[in-house]
Amino acid sequence: MTKNIPSTIKYYVFSKDKDFQLDSGLKFGPITVAYETFGELNENKDNAVLVIHALTANTHVCSHYDKDRKTEGWWDNIAGPNKPIDTKKYFVICSNYLGGCYGTTGPSSINPDTGRPFGLDFPIITVRDMVKVQKKLIDHLGIKKLKLVLGGSLGGMQVLEWSVLYPDSLERAIVIASAYKTSPQVIAFGEVGRYAIMSDDNFNNGNYYNSKLPEKGLSIARMIAHITYLSKEAMELKFGRDIKGEILETDKLHGIFGPMFQVESYLRYQGQKFVQRFDANTYIYITKAMDMYDLTKDRENISHALSSVKCKMLVVSFTSDWHFRPSESWEIVKVMMNLKKEVSYVNIDSDYGHDAFLIKNDEMEKIIASYLKF
Amino acid sequence: MTKNIPSTIKYYVFSKDKDFQLDSGLKFGPITVAYETFGELNENKDNAVLVIHALTANTHVCSHYDKDRKTEGWWDNIAGPNKPIDTKKYFVICSNYLGGCYGTTGPSSINPDTGRPFGLDFPIITVRDMVKVQKKLIDHLGIKKLKLVLGGSLGGMQVLEWSVLYPDSLERAIVIASAYKTSPQVIAFGEVGRYAIMSDDNFNNGNYYNSKLPEKGLSIARMIAHITYLSKEAMELKFGRDIKGEILETDKLHGIFGPMFQVESYLRYQGQKFVQRFDANTYIYITKAMDMYDLTKDRENISHALSSVKCKMLVVSFTSDWHFRPSESWEIVKVMMNLKKEVSYVNIDSDYGHDAFLIKNDEMEKIIASYLKF
Repeated sequence: MTKNIPSTIKYYVFSKDKDFQLDSGLKFGPITVAYETFGELNENKDNAVLVIHALTANTHVCSHYDKDRKTEGWWDNIAGPNKPIDTKKYFVICSNYLGGCYGTTGPSSINPDTGRPFGLDFPIITVRDMVKVQKKLIDHLGIKKLKLVLGGSLGGMQVLEWSVLYPDSLERAIVIASAYKTSPQVIAFGEVGRYAIMSDDNFNNGNYYNSKLPEKGLSIARMIAHITYLSKEAMELKFGRDIKGEILETDKLHGIFGPMFQVESYLRYQGQKFVQRFDANTYIYITKAMDMYDLTKDRENISHALSSVKCKMLVVSFTSDWHFRPSESWEIVKVMMNLKKEVSYVNIDSDYGHDAFLIKNDEMEKIIASYLKF
Repeated sequence: MTKNIPSTIKYYVFSKDKDFQLDSGLKFGPITVAYETFGELNENKDNAVLVIHALTANTHVCSHYDKDRKTEGWWDNIAGPNKPIDTKKYFVICSNYLGGCYGTTGPSSINPDTGRPFGLDFPIITVRDMVKVQKKLIDHLGIKKLKLVLGGSLGGMQVLEWSVLYPDSLERAIVIASAYKTSPQVIAFGEVGRYAIMSDDNFNNGNYYNSKLPEKGLSIARMIAHITYLSKEAMELKFGRDIKGEILETDKLHGIFGPMFQVESYLRYQGQKFVQRFDANTYIYITKAMDMYDLTKDRENISHALSSVKCKMLVVSFTSDWHFRPSESWEIVKVMMNLKKEVSYVNIDSDYGHDAFLIKNDEMEKIIASYLKF
């Protein structure tokens, strides 16, 4: 266990007076932010990298060793000792977003006014709110300027907001597999997922914490999402039309419809695994925040919105990503170029679809490593 | 009301001895086939065109006038008086598939052995079974050779099977927006839909006919399917990120998550409309048959399978169809060309995705009209 891999999740509590101004106009608090850091902050506090996680991830970016027990990080190929974001050199921070279920205040947190989980009494939050909460944490850590802010998908949207809201607080930004506003197709898939959760008889208007969970609905939402994360090509390569021999014990009913495809079995498994680790209300709140996201909201247009950017920006997309298409990344790049901003763009050749940013990829690793030195 | 637009659905009953051989090995019967015909069969019985409907359509290809009341046909731009398939000249037949809920024997039909609807006691059926049932109907009508067999999507799969199973019984075939086997992505979406239906508390192991219907599950399945029928471009054009002002009366819960997008509202509406007209068990049986479909099953390979084809074949795809991609149509064409069969291929430029074959399209109309004369 090396000392530059810290071991525990930390918490920062603020807005004890309930004065945190939400995008919706409401004031809210107290807010607990769960975060992890990896590596050490130097004396000048100028080696900090903020990694922003996507929809269903958590603060655990890098692997962690507790004695001999290793808990895998979700971005081990990118961040860690001797990795592109080298934690021997950089201080990596990752916080769970507002509304989350991995430590930060969210719908499953106890509402201090009632002593019960918020459920649907949790206020509506936006991507901008998530970023404002992160900024509070960065201020708390005494960091004036981040070396780099980066993230994929929902994380990438937050990177964009960072670069616009706090132009003096970051030196570089990497926006991966993302968009400056959500496409109607992404909204549509999001909506079906939310509808499935709310249609689950166990949902009970969001008050399910002391009874049966809306597992079927959340499982359906996850299955749909999983399809959108994989490319058609990746599915061909990974599953083809292979048949799974055995029929799941829990799935006698399916059995009557003959053999089950590997891809069906895989999706069922992904759905079942997900419900054990994720809160259904958080899923609803955060997908809705993602679907509502539009960088131009309360700003004249995209050109006006990006005009305040001061950092260097790298935009990365993946050829087979049909959920957040390369053309959506290119939209950002074009505007930045027209504004004569320092922007770079890479469309990485990959068969893995939207998931590509979470999968080991030599090109992405090289690009991120060199961008930090650039 | 012109006399070449017939008015009523007809029924043909066969296999009263339960001797119809299913693909699964089981014998089944009696089978009622619901069908409609438009135009008149000529004396030589050589002007018949078999239109095969897709997953959720029915026998009602052409508009029908009952006194002054018009019931729209689902393919009015293609078939009807003075249309590309001119019912003044051709005798158009369309039957509901085996397992259906529009008149042909299916899971919602009464099981003569029990006096109750079959439900999940209905046997597993395949695309090949559907075609064999259609052939019984064509024999019954005394037609030796069909002038043309055509259909889109699931209909296209049946056209392929027709051309292989009964090479001497058709002169021409048009396979539209289809494939010779279902891709894992289509299977994956199908699986989530089936899972949603079976997860509905009202599903009750398929025995819901005398109680509450699994409307939520079927609605979710339909919403998912609808997204796959539209292209990303079509969604941009049709909905963009437009907001629907009012909140549905039935949807107070959604209201707390702020405004609703047009695309969300549209999907909800499509889901709700569908459950009033379609049987959930049929949806499960037929999507599973579709997902299991592979022309090469029990045949050596695709080249071997298509080697028996004797008809002229036209394959049509649409540029923006990501559910059944042009490349999947092209696969069929390539093999047919290698086999030196009479095959033509058109990839029609359209923004409408998989739905394009059901939408008015000048190019498709011209191509079908000229292919009949060719």
